[in-house]
Amino acid sequence: MPPVVTVASPAASQEVAAVALQERYGHVRAASCRLAAPLSPEDAMVQSMDDASPAKWHLAHTTWFFEHFVLEAAGQAPLRPQWNYLFNSYYDSAGPRHPRPRRGLLSRPSLQEVLEYRRQVDERVLAALDGDVLPGPARERLELGLHHEQQHQELLLTDIQHALWCHPLRPAYRADLPRPPDAAAAPLQWMAQDERIVEVGAPRWPPGPDFAYDNESPPHRVLVPAHAVASRPVTNAEYRRFVEDGGYRTPALWLSDGWARVQAEAWERPLYWEPGLDAACTLGGLRPLPPHAPVCHLSYYEADAFARWAGARLPTELEWERAATPLPVQGNFADDGLLQPRAARGEGLQQLYGDVWEWTSSAYLPWPGFKPWQDDTGEYNGKFMCGQWVLRGGSCATPRGHVRASYRNFFPPHARWQFAGLRLARDRA
Amino acid sequence: MPPVVTVASPAASQEVAAVALQERYGHVRAASCRLAAPLSPEDAMVQSMDDASPAKWHLAHTTWFFEHFVLEAAGQAPLRPQWNYLFNSYYDSAGPRHPRPRRGLLSRPSLQEVLEYRRQVDERVLAALDGDVLPGPARERLELGLHHEQQHQELLLTDIQHALWCHPLRPAYRADLPRPPDAAAAPLQWMAQDERIVEVGAPRWPPGPDFAYDNESPPHRVLVPAHAVASRPVTNAEYRRFVEDGGYRTPALWLSDGWARVQAEAWERPLYWEPGLDAACTLGGLRPLPPHAPVCHLSYYEADAFARWAGARLPTELEWERAATPLPVQGNFADDGLLQPRAARGEGLQQLYGDVWEWTSSAYLPWPGFKPWQDDTGEYNGKFMCGQWVLRGGSCATPRGHVRASYRNFFPPHARWQFAGLRLARDRA
Amino acid sequence: MPPVVTVASPAASQEVAAVALQERYGHVRAASCRLAAPLSPEDAMVQSMDDASPAKWHLAHTTWFFEHFVLEAAGQAPLRPQWNYLFNSYYDSAGPRHPRPRRGLLSRPSLQEVLEYRRQVDERVLAALDGDVLPGPARERLELGLHHEQQHQELLLTDIQHALWCHPLRPAYRADLPRPPDAAAAPLQWMAQDERIVEVGAPRWPPGPDFAYDNESPPHRVLVPAHAVASRPVTNAEYRRFVEDGGYRTPALWLSDGWARVQAEAWERPLYWEPGLDAACTLGGLRPLPPHAPVCHLSYYEADAFARWAGARLPTELEWERAATPLPVQGNFADDGLLQPRAARGEGLQQLYGDVWEWTSSAYLPWPGFKPWQDDTGEYNGKFMCGQWVLRGGSCATPRGHVRASYRNFFPPHARWQFAGLRLARDRA
Amino acid sequence: MPPVVTVASPAASQEVAAVALQERYGHVRAASCRLAAPLSPEDAMVQSMDDASPAKWHLAHTTWFFEHFVLEAAGQAPLRPQWNYLFNSYYDSAGPRHPRPRRGLLSRPSLQEVLEYRRQVDERVLAALDGDVLPGPARERLELGLHHEQQHQELLLTDIQHALWCHPLRPAYRADLPRPPDAAAAPLQWMAQDERIVEVGAPRWPPGPDFAYDNESPPHRVLVPAHAVASRPVTNAEYRRFVEDGGYRTPALWLSDGWARVQAEAWERPLYWEPGLDAACTLGGLRPLPPHAPVCHLSYYEADAFARWAGARLPTELEWERAATPLPVQGNFADDGLLQPRAARGEGLQQLYGDVWEWTSSAYLPWPGFKPWQDDTGEYNGKFMCGQWVLRGGSCATPRGHVRASYRNFFPPHARWQFAGLRLARDRA
Repeated sequence: MPPVVTVASPAASQEVAAVALQERYGHVRAASCRLAAPLSPEDAMVQSMDDASPAKWHLAHTTWFFEHFVLEAAGQAPLRPQWNYLFNSYYDSAGPRHPRPRRGLLSRPSLQEVLEYRRQVDERVLAALDGDVLPGPARERLELGLHHEQQHQELLLTDIQHALWCHPLRPAYRADLPRPPDAAAAPLQWMAQDERIVEVGAPRWPPGPDFAYDNESPPHRVLVPAHAVASRPVTNAEYRRFVEDGGYRTPALWLSDGWARVQAEAWERPLYWEPGLDAACTLGGLRPLPPHAPVCHLSYYEADAFARWAGARLPTELEWERAATPLPVQGNFADDGLLQPRAARGEGLQQLYGDVWEWTSSAYLPWPGFKPWQDDTGEYNGKFMCGQWVLRGGSCATPRGHVRASYRNFFPPHARWQFAGLRLARDRA
Repeated sequence: MPPVVTVASPAASQEVAAVALQERYGHVRAASCRLAAPLSPEDAMVQSMDDASPAKWHLAHTTWFFEHFVLEAAGQAPLRPQWNYLFNSYYDSAGPRHPRPRRGLLSRPSLQEVLEYRRQVDERVLAALDGDVLPGPARERLELGLHHEQQHQELLLTDIQHALWCHPLRPAYRADLPRPPDAAAAPLQWMAQDERIVEVGAPRWPPGPDFAYDNESPPHRVLVPAHAVASRPVTNAEYRRFVEDGGYRTPALWLSDGWARVQAEAWERPLYWEPGLDAACTLGGLRPLPPHAPVCHLSYYEADAFARWAGARLPTELEWERAATPLPVQGNFADDGLLQPRAARGEGLQQLYGDVWEWTSSAYLPWPGFKPWQDDTGEYNGKFMCGQWVLRGGSCATPRGHVRASYRNFFPPHARWQFAGLRLARDRA
Repeated sequence: MPPVVTVASPAASQEVAAVALQERYGHVRAASCRLAAPLSPEDAMVQSMDDASPAKWHLAHTTWFFEHFVLEAAGQAPLRPQWNYLFNSYYDSAGPRHPRPRRGLLSRPSLQEVLEYRRQVDERVLAALDGDVLPGPARERLELGLHHEQQHQELLLTDIQHALWCHPLRPAYRADLPRPPDAAAAPLQWMAQDERIVEVGAPRWPPGPDFAYDNESPPHRVLVPAHAVASRPVTNAEYRRFVEDGGYRTPALWLSDGWARVQAEAWERPLYWEPGLDAACTLGGLRPLPPHAPVCHLSYYEADAFARWAGARLPTELEWERAATPLPVQGNFADDGLLQPRAARGEGLQQLYGDVWEWTSSAYLPWPGFKPWQDDTGEYNGKFMCGQWVLRGGSCATPRGHVRASYRNFFPPHARWQFAGLRLARDRA
Repeated sequence: MPPVVTVASPAASQEVAAVALQERYGHVRAASCRLAAPLSPEDAMVQSMDDASPAKWHLAHTTWFFEHFVLEAAGQAPLRPQWNYLFNSYYDSAGPRHPRPRRGLLSRPSLQEVLEYRRQVDERVLAALDGDVLPGPARERLELGLHHEQQHQELLLTDIQHALWCHPLRPAYRADLPRPPDAAAAPLQWMAQDERIVEVGAPRWPPGPDFAYDNESPPHRVLVPAHAVASRPVTNAEYRRFVEDGGYRTPALWLSDGWARVQAEAWERPLYWEPGLDAACTLGGLRPLPPHAPVCHLSYYEADAFARWAGARLPTELEWERAATPLPVQGNFADDGLLQPRAARGEGLQQLYGDVWEWTSSAYLPWPGFKPWQDDTGEYNGKFMCGQWVLRGGSCATPRGHVRASYRNFFPPHARWQFAGLRLARDRA
């Protein structure tokens, strides 16, 4: 995704890069507003659980990120210093902050004021880019800010889906979302791999030219054992058989913590499924469940239990990355406007990118040699390396261009409200 | 407050009463909208604790009350049957309902839609009154609905005060509220009373002509022992001395449950006071604390501890009612537009009505011979006769005409967010 | 219960009183050990819920009470000063203390050491009485200590019943307890009373000669309205009809807090009843439920709901005291060794004393003119006057001689593990 | 640890093995009783937190394990079938069970009865071994049962240490424990390793001859990157510098979950340290902190934060196993009777085994190709592979002969009550 430049002089090259950055900035920032457009000021304020944030908060926080990490770092005083407390998420370096579970109480600033705040910050950022007054580090943080904003775009969608699902009347986010065709899924194939030393991970950015989060680096060699991965994710129909076979009533299929959760929260099926197992709440409202589309809104516990029931296991993130690295980053992403997973088509390895995030069997841990970014963005990823599991590949709610083979998403094992599904794997002697 | 009629024929009398009721209906309903007018749609959605409700919910619930208890009882199908689940508060007879702590998640209907709902229900109610198609019981419930709505007007104010106080930036509900004069309070006098049998309580309504809640009836004789009550409520300055004397650090002054609460929630002063003890968050924003105005936003625990520290006690509700019955219902009410207590003026018994609710030492229990209303409004009061304490007299946030000598308000002993203060009393040999 | 003396000189009278006190001291103290005798050291350490205490703790705490309030007050240094922290219950005046919910962790001192502690303190107390070295106030506290110990004897029984019921194998406290005859209960009669001013409450002790807790004083006049009380408590068979009639599934019968508790804790019958409604866990183990014996182990919520279902109500404590005052304090008490309620026999008012504590409709509040004892025993009763309900009359687990007409027991409305039942009352026009 | 046999015929070999197994059985079983000997029946019943169990429960559960998995599997009816409910720990296959947090309520059976139960089960097991009536699988479970019992021996010690520490008077488990010499620790050296493929893990047992838990298998090849490990664990003195440097007040040093825990539980130092940082509660009572002994009773969060503060990191379990594999399993174990860590002596890699468990940076996950045991002991390890971290090497409370290079212990990251410390590691370019 870095701008491909073929110019002669460094100065010209930098200018071209600046123009490309300006365009990308405008594109990414506009996308957030587009996603929030169907929401009323009241919708944009709902926080339906501690793990989720109001849409308005996402819009403001991503803006604060540019103001704090880019403009302030470039010497500009903040427009509304008192908002630092409201819209700092988890940066201890940026000072105290509003408790996360109380974000839904922030009636002020209004959605309108937040959109105006976005406009003002955008103006300042674009002016700074235009005037070429951003020092190198600030430009890097601006790059980071765009990726950060894309992450929040997906969260805005998953959080609002949860919020509306919590409403007793089950309103839709966008009743006009198209319904994907649900052709029969290709039969599942096992793609075998031999034991091999492979290099995984991304070159450190910066100074590397291609953006990657610090947790994707450094590149390193690993020995991936012989194994096979499934050609496509598990479908709704396949998962339904697990449910109907008593999967949610059989402790032997579950991790101990998972079984405790199943009992404590009376889980009986994926998060948004209706009791009849034939319909689910989607961003488009309550809809029939397409049998051949990848199952999603699973926790790690459910993905793991399904795999055990199926006589298989989840892939490690190394196995996943090895499989994905040669493939182009193509798939059903948020930009396609479906906002729902779609049945696999074609032959060979399918849907590694897009449709649903795939739970891996890998706990979220540092790569050998991992170093967090050495400034105050070092809190971005590293401090969460405990109690979380890695998901790979992006989903139908992920902005196109946000993921890559080395991208490591992570959530706690009980999290169900993301577009998270699974792909099976198995050992080979 | 009942219409005073001096007419000849019952029919004419009824017509006059109907007109009066229409007018009163219009007046009460409009007052709710006026109170909500300073709020944005987002403000109107905040629920800052389980005990409070969003302003929008108050507006909708009071409307549902008329629709369910008046129009439906008169045979009219509800306009939006699916809202019954959303806006039923605690009536088991009216079916299942949205859990109270999750009222803040109801982004739909919007504030605009709720206001439109109010308009439509008002139209129907007024048409029914106009056409004289309401059967007697429905008219009685309409009367009840008006008193119910007035209660919620006060809750709307206290709930929004709490919501805005929870916001880190402490916005005002109405920054333009006038500041009351704070002349020195009259010196406290003790008004002595001898032992005497008195009649307390209100005649049962209906059939009695004057509205009273069922919990105010029946009238009954009680023996009130000799005692004295203070001529006015305790002031901010007086309460501040208690704080400065270590009141919040002295367990011997507190009920056991109160002391547990002081420690668990680190209470150090009244709810909305600032640490410096000289300013408080009000509906008008953060303001200097007027020393001579009645202290408020106290729990029962604090009122009781202050009284013990002062070598006195709280009055019983019988002592209070005996003192208040002869007095006219005059004072600083919501309609006066101050929305803050005001220093006492004049001689003799002051401020029994208005300014601040007065915690009594009486647990909220049935009067001898109490019978709840015998229809589905019987849930209104009786089922809460456990774990609550009686407050008397109304406050600066109570609509004028809502209280009377027999009116029994009640809250749990830890509740602090109401305009609740205290008046001292003591025994006489 | 005070020694009846008819002697000539004050000195001789005092001597006789001292001897009587020594005897009573020995008798009361020995009774505690007798109650604990069936328990193993391990049984004596169980704390099955926060509200209950281990039997060993009861034995030690009552001893500490004499050491702290009598011997220390008489100038004697404590035998084991470090145990003050362990065995102080709730006296802020006596310093910090071990958190109540963690009493079950106190493996040290052992039961054996506690019994030895009892022996040593008894020796000191008796020596002090013998040598007549106790100042008057210390003698009064010794008197108080005996009543205090009797209270804990009942708690020891109810707490161990709960502890053993919590054990999956349901062991008995004493499998050898006799089984009371269960003759058919006398038909219920209503005993009518007219409105009348009566005096209730006990003369203040000290200086009055007869012991009473401070919360029973002062005597005062009250106007008791016309009413009727049932001739005997409600029986198991009568309560079973309530259960079978769906009492636990009908919200309209319950106080709001009670219904919340029914749902949260899935109450379906009295605490110790088996699902078949025909057997219950008793101190004698699992036994058939005697249909004609008074129902017990009810919360206030259940007693209140039953009364509503029966078209009646609970008596006020004033009504109860008025009825009980003329009657001799006779009944089925702990000393009778049954430790279970027994069916009523005979005519007229039955079982006001003994068998089961009777929930009244009175919240536990101060009598008019109430003053706590003015030394550090003032924490004994007064600070609990919030959130509790009065029970009257004593139970089959109460030591004979501990109760009287003015005795006010109190527990929170959800408490079920006491021998608490109910007697019906109703209004009379 | 398997018996070394050099005999000719299979039959004779089996006989020798049986004798060795009998001896080992007697030795292991007796060790548990020896550890419990200093405890009173009351001590043996304390459960000071949900994660810990009473000593009596450990004694009974380990016995139940033999009865259920060996004797019942060999066709013998259980001695006390109703105890299955009490002493099953977490085996869903063995039926329902007493809730873990309520183990401290089990006053029955008494300690005496549990010891008798042990005797009877031992008799049966030894008779079965003697008569050679155990089928192969039952013999394997008996082998497993011995290792299981050794695990519980360590837990008995750590649980009782916690229980006694919770007692306000801080009694000792054994006041007569020797005090280890505290010679100055050897200077820390870095032991460098190059990148290399190594084989880790144990051959699967059974059928392999050497016992290993299923989670240690299968052996597999991994690529261990270049790194260095410290020659000895971190000492008390070193850790104290971290505390004094504000380690517990610096969020940047902590994982996000760890910092939340530090704040929520007000952590300021290792679990058993006194505020002065110079003494700690040990199994021998409150003792001066030996500066040169390895620090212990740390959570993973603390170990990780210390490493970050020290500019290093924790080793992976692969790095640890690679370092430990060539070394003899020697060190300060429970059998040495110190029950406290001891300062390192000598040169080179020290204390990999014994003294303190070493937190690794590895989440507890399945080895590639992991298969749980295929019978009902399959619940032993596999279902806990979520939310836990690996510790290696055993401690001063681990029975000698229980650990090995491939042994994988695991605990949640907040667990502090084990003898858990850390060894530093670092990357090498």
